[in-house]
Amino acid sequence: MEKMLVFGHKNPDTDSITAAIAYADLKKELGFNVEATRLGEVNAETQYALDYFKVEAPRLVEQASKEANTVILVDHNEFQQSAEDIADVRIAEVVDHHRVSNFETSDPLMMRVEPVGCTATILLKLYKEKGVEVKKEVAGLMLSAIISDSLLFKSPTCTDEDVAAAKELADIAGVNAEEYGLDMLKAGADLSQKSAEELISLDAKEFTMGSQKVEIGQVNTVDTNEVLERRNEIENAMTNTINEKGLGLFVFAITDILTNDSTVIALGDHSDKVEKAFNSQLQDGQATLKGVVSRKKQIVPPLTEAFTK
Amino acid sequence: MEKMLVFGHKNPDTDSITAAIAYADLKKELGFNVEATRLGEVNAETQYALDYFKVEAPRLVEQASKEANTVILVDHNEFQQSAEDIADVRIAEVVDHHRVSNFETSDPLMMRVEPVGCTATILLKLYKEKGVEVKKEVAGLMLSAIISDSLLFKSPTCTDEDVAAAKELADIAGVNAEEYGLDMLKAGADLSQKSAEELISLDAKEFTMGSQKVEIGQVNTVDTNEVLERRNEIENAMTNTINEKGLGLFVFAITDILTNDSTVIALGDHSDKVEKAFNSQLQDGQATLKGVVSRKKQIVPPLTEAFTK
Repeated sequence: MEKMLVFGHKNPDTDSITAAIAYADLKKELGFNVEATRLGEVNAETQYALDYFKVEAPRLVEQASKEANTVILVDHNEFQQSAEDIADVRIAEVVDHHRVSNFETSDPLMMRVEPVGCTATILLKLYKEKGVEVKKEVAGLMLSAIISDSLLFKSPTCTDEDVAAAKELADIAGVNAEEYGLDMLKAGADLSQKSAEELISLDAKEFTMGSQKVEIGQVNTVDTNEVLERRNEIENAMTNTINEKGLGLFVFAITDILTNDSTVIALGDHSDKVEKAFNSQLQDGQATLKGVVSRKKQIVPPLTEAFTK
Repeated sequence: MEKMLVFGHKNPDTDSITAAIAYADLKKELGFNVEATRLGEVNAETQYALDYFKVEAPRLVEQASKEANTVILVDHNEFQQSAEDIADVRIAEVVDHHRVSNFETSDPLMMRVEPVGCTATILLKLYKEKGVEVKKEVAGLMLSAIISDSLLFKSPTCTDEDVAAAKELADIAGVNAEEYGLDMLKAGADLSQKSAEELISLDAKEFTMGSQKVEIGQVNTVDTNEVLERRNEIENAMTNTINEKGLGLFVFAITDILTNDSTVIALGDHSDKVEKAFNSQLQDGQATLKGVVSRKKQIVPPLTEAFTK
């Protein structure tokens, strides 16, 4: 049987890594020849979850078309967030919870996109629809994804379905979601050992807004000032990326997981769009956005509108 | 509660009309404020089904944004096949069975796309997942859609799931699928009263292939020669459309529902792509494609490849 690769987006977060593992597990149970893979390095938060539940990280794949003709995308659909050669392979399936953009196929496919907080919540439904039991360690990873994407259920992206799925998965995994979750988030929020280049690319995604390429990076922290002390270094790294990729705007969001506010640094020719989007003056390219924790729900939509309206 | 419009593609076929009716029915049962609408005239085949099961046609809508802020798309996703002002409204849901292309949203949405032969087959699953019974007349319309899209189960797009869904729906509707189906297809295949302009636009869809706009029209008939006798008239109408829309190619497929072959007429600067796609010489702009009945599966993919590779 033809082998298919399953992978999440570039700069994978916990949902992208664990969704590849979980969906590959489900497809294998259903008799398919699939392999969970990843398009980038495993971050500290995800590594904590993998270690805790004793699961190996998926294999790193550089070019999908060298490995398989057919792929399954999880936790993303926009081509600029996917494998470089995504246009050269057949996409058989997509399971995702983001907006749909810059995505196309030449053939019909299976596409399951729902406006929930986490891919894992959709995957739990798929397990149930197929009548397959979720293994203990897979449930632990899926729970980790929901905690990560929802910042322990505090993000406005978090729906009742996510909370219910997390509860069910925590029972299967045999952990206390709140306790385990805070430990996992803190493991991911230790930024002291990261270079400025690592910080801005750790969880960065590129978007097309209007006619511009816009990159939005995000880090979680328990100490925003610790990150801001390295502002010069970070700004240099951002400027380099803007020049390399020809970006119209780079937004770097530092999200405090205890206060649930984000401090953003905005650089590029279109940094005025950030002021327009959030109705907030940038002070020296910087602004604090109260209660903003979700890139998907609180940053991308107003910024897209500022670029297009 | 905010009202949402549900509609299928322009030049609606039986699946587009009945999927709007069925999905609006399901959403109403679930407590939503929705209205089934349509983006074009009801064809003779669909009218036969509506009359048979005594259901009113959905209301014609010219501009979606004048009627609602939020819409649900069924049986299509490509913007050029949707309402003219589709970019001005929020798309909350898509239920479809086609390739995904020229589609984007700025927010997460519910998107249920499956590689089956008919939207009705997916809708039957959704009814079951939500635990809602399908009404007798709605089941009859959904069955009609499967028969229409699969040419009575003979198209290569027809999957085992479509056949099983049709069987289930025929039982609920209380009709013999084969007998009812042939009568319905014949009602739609009477082309004698149609003008050439009507013939080429009856079931026409526009696609973007490479950098070109390509229109593919299709009619079903029990007598191909009856249509070909009007070749000059049809060719003039096609040429007008090519000039008006700036098409690189117009393919008009005449599909014989008894022999399951299609005769295509290809006009436009890129008509050589038809020869490349089907490895078949055009004789005076015309070719017979044996066993080709499905635009989606047998015409669009090879033609897209001819334009892009």
